[in-house]
Amino acid sequence: MKLVAQDMHIATGGTPVILVSKHEARVWDLHPLDRLLVRSGRHSTIAVLDVAEKEGMVRKGSVGLFQEVIDSLRVRHGEFVDVELAEKPESVSFIRRKLEGKSLGYPELKSIMQDIVKDKLSEIEITSYVAANYTRGMNLQETCDLTRAMTDTGDVINFHEKQLVDIHCIGGVPGNRTTLIVVPILVAAGLIVPKTASRAITSPAGTADAMEVLAQVSFSREKLQRVLKSAGGFIVWGGAMNLAPADEKIIRVEYPLSIDAEGQMLASIMAKKASVGATHVLIDIPLGNGAKVRDFANATRLKSLFSTLGSRLGMQVKVMLSDGTEPIGNGIGPSLEATDCLRILEGEEQPSDLRGKSVVMAGKALEFAGKAKTGKGRSMAERLLQSGEAWQSMQRIIHAQGGKRTTHTRIGLAHFSGEVVSPSSGAVKHIENSVIAKLARLAGAPVDKTAGVLLHAHKGNLVGRGDTLLTVFSESQEKLEFAKNFLKKNKAVWVNQ
Amino acid sequence: MKLVAQDMHIATGGTPVILVSKHEARVWDLHPLDRLLVRSGRHSTIAVLDVAEKEGMVRKGSVGLFQEVIDSLRVRHGEFVDVELAEKPESVSFIRRKLEGKSLGYPELKSIMQDIVKDKLSEIEITSYVAANYTRGMNLQETCDLTRAMTDTGDVINFHEKQLVDIHCIGGVPGNRTTLIVVPILVAAGLIVPKTASRAITSPAGTADAMEVLAQVSFSREKLQRVLKSAGGFIVWGGAMNLAPADEKIIRVEYPLSIDAEGQMLASIMAKKASVGATHVLIDIPLGNGAKVRDFANATRLKSLFSTLGSRLGMQVKVMLSDGTEPIGNGIGPSLEATDCLRILEGEEQPSDLRGKSVVMAGKALEFAGKAKTGKGRSMAERLLQSGEAWQSMQRIIHAQGGKRTTHTRIGLAHFSGEVVSPSSGAVKHIENSVIAKLARLAGAPVDKTAGVLLHAHKGNLVGRGDTLLTVFSESQEKLEFAKNFLKKNKAVWVNQ
Repeated sequence: MKLVAQDMHIATGGTPVILVSKHEARVWDLHPLDRLLVRSGRHSTIAVLDVAEKEGMVRKGSVGLFQEVIDSLRVRHGEFVDVELAEKPESVSFIRRKLEGKSLGYPELKSIMQDIVKDKLSEIEITSYVAANYTRGMNLQETCDLTRAMTDTGDVINFHEKQLVDIHCIGGVPGNRTTLIVVPILVAAGLIVPKTASRAITSPAGTADAMEVLAQVSFSREKLQRVLKSAGGFIVWGGAMNLAPADEKIIRVEYPLSIDAEGQMLASIMAKKASVGATHVLIDIPLGNGAKVRDFANATRLKSLFSTLGSRLGMQVKVMLSDGTEPIGNGIGPSLEATDCLRILEGEEQPSDLRGKSVVMAGKALEFAGKAKTGKGRSMAERLLQSGEAWQSMQRIIHAQGGKRTTHTRIGLAHFSGEVVSPSSGAVKHIENSVIAKLARLAGAPVDKTAGVLLHAHKGNLVGRGDTLLTVFSESQEKLEFAKNFLKKNKAVWVNQ
Repeated sequence: MKLVAQDMHIATGGTPVILVSKHEARVWDLHPLDRLLVRSGRHSTIAVLDVAEKEGMVRKGSVGLFQEVIDSLRVRHGEFVDVELAEKPESVSFIRRKLEGKSLGYPELKSIMQDIVKDKLSEIEITSYVAANYTRGMNLQETCDLTRAMTDTGDVINFHEKQLVDIHCIGGVPGNRTTLIVVPILVAAGLIVPKTASRAITSPAGTADAMEVLAQVSFSREKLQRVLKSAGGFIVWGGAMNLAPADEKIIRVEYPLSIDAEGQMLASIMAKKASVGATHVLIDIPLGNGAKVRDFANATRLKSLFSTLGSRLGMQVKVMLSDGTEPIGNGIGPSLEATDCLRILEGEEQPSDLRGKSVVMAGKALEFAGKAKTGKGRSMAERLLQSGEAWQSMQRIIHAQGGKRTTHTRIGLAHFSGEVVSPSSGAVKHIENSVIAKLARLAGAPVDKTAGVLLHAHKGNLVGRGDTLLTVFSESQEKLEFAKNFLKKNKAVWVNQ
């Protein structure tokens, strides 16, 4: 059928959408969520149909086009376009197969990932895929095939190195910014570490957000090759590259239901490692209430899954479990976390929990990458930190990524601040991860880099009545008020009396 | 936060949507699919957030409002509205529980149905609910609770009668319009039959579409009470009333994936029967390739589920299995089907398959509703048909529903037609349900009432070379061409040589 293009002046950022009036839908027997092939001259695109509920929104004989459709057809408002029913993508039948409980192979999973990346699947279809994975589960072969499918539907960078070491933390623990310390220790030991990190989605800071306080984090593939050559490592934002791009669109539909299908999570992480050609991967799984992984059985199962998956994919994977019950380090928020990391690299002993954990992680990585004998990695890491070699490596990385040589004292803090003091004398009994994270976000982190929470005491520390327990930093009085109001209803720090 | 209302001139017909710019989303830490409470004066509503991907779509400091939000806030373009984060509805946590494999009780299911009806759940959330039901399945108690939940979140009509008989066909077989014959037979026997029927969604005609050829089918509850009093029965469109309204929104997300969760299907059907207070329900399950239910094991399982569910809900349910492998009757499409039905009611023997099946169904209903002794129902139905009493009942029903006394010869047919002739002499071996249905739809049914397909031969009939096998009727030459093109690639009738 021929219809007149009507520019709806709207963009969804996902599947291209077209709109017809109820009248047109009846006459042409079209249903909401039908797929249509829309053509204009040599250009064509597949769009998903919605039916305009409001009279007059789309004129009779017209079809309303969202921005994505207008862009790909290069059509102008008022011109004719050809519209006809299109077949559903084959991947929809694969999703149905998974819903029915059958397992999928590489070709099917690649087809689904490809169509997700190319915006050919609607939210309903992506949600069904995620729910099918979540309820039916994935066996090891499927997870392995999904990892390959996610890798192969994005860019892959070849750094032409025999050994590339990568580290990853499952997340969920505020302040746990070990990467900014472990990477320079490993580089100082002569290892090559191409670390692509993420930005925060629901947390107060991602590794990329913290690194951005010190240097640039968005690079082209070519520039990245040069950074790695000159500095031996980098810490950049993976989202700037097209690595396993299906992940972001899958996360989008997982977010409203807070579900995280295990096979999908494993594949998303490993696909990003495979995309940079990592040969050795150290994975940290923080464990405990308030962390992403809450029980020991689940953590050990994940540990074994990661290792097996790694060996099938030709990577050496080492998994460590760590305490995830309390925040790590003093600062929560990009600038505050970068400050903690530089302080340790510059030679300070504090914050000792973050320093200790980083040394342990670096030690394990040094051992399994063959730089230290078993049992000797930790002392080697300690030496590289104390000698200032790790700090020099970090400065080279910062410089290669376009940052300035700096010290932790030069990192700025937000203008507005408020304190929480201890109502009594005693030992700090517990600090609640989720409350601290939410507090830092309400204060403006990670968008406002200098906003966040600074902890003055950790679990087990003795505090006096009236001592400061934490300071909230914010760039606006209004956001500081949001944070304060939140604290009226939610307790962040428990002190034993 | 205070933002300026910007009318987006768009309506979704589902969950209310608001849009903010990427800038605003970053500053206020908002995510796509977050729920927000939007207020203006005394009015407030919960909306789901989308982030505008196109620069300038939503102005800085503004919030784009879809029609549903503008209507419920009674706000005008340019006025200030208050926007703040809202909690997710509790029903989302119940959906997650079902995804995790736990079963739900009445309060949880009612909460989900309520929020679906009130447009409080997004497509992603409704899809997750449907996928969870589909993959996890529902036990009998859950199906029973779901039926009650669907009934209780819609209107319920009390006709103040001790016995109300209802019939239902699972569908999928073209031409199978038994309802227009069975209902008047039952009414002629003195039974009271409040039949709420559906319109076609993907088929060429629903019972409501065929009845609409003869009379009005949309009535208020009050008018319906009067129709039942005066005629003893009715055949109306259930969609005009608010009976188990969650069904329509659930079907909307099932449609793109062609999935049909069994528990959901059972509950949707039974909830509509419960909404009109049916005490006796006869259910026809056509069985075979090309019907909705394809294998015997599945059909007998459904049969037992319907019966048990009925008894738990306090209804007497009788289920019959019938042959669903071929179309039933001659006409496919609203007018052509109405013609078949009136012809039989007026005393003709043809189409004999439709007549025979209707008599069997009516006989079973007469027996289990206590009007005929076991084994005597069929002959009673035959007598009521032959004597013209069923025809008189139908005329009373048509009259009460605002239709005119008519005969089958007065029902008009579409102007344009094309024929398919037999390529050889022999017996008709098979007629393909899905091809016939699609053909009738392409010709214009059910929107064009007079469009459709007329079968001139049935399975087993002998035809000569060049004899007409079927005629396609259409109101436009263009649609007739669509149908003809479809027939070039798809075979509707097989003839044995």
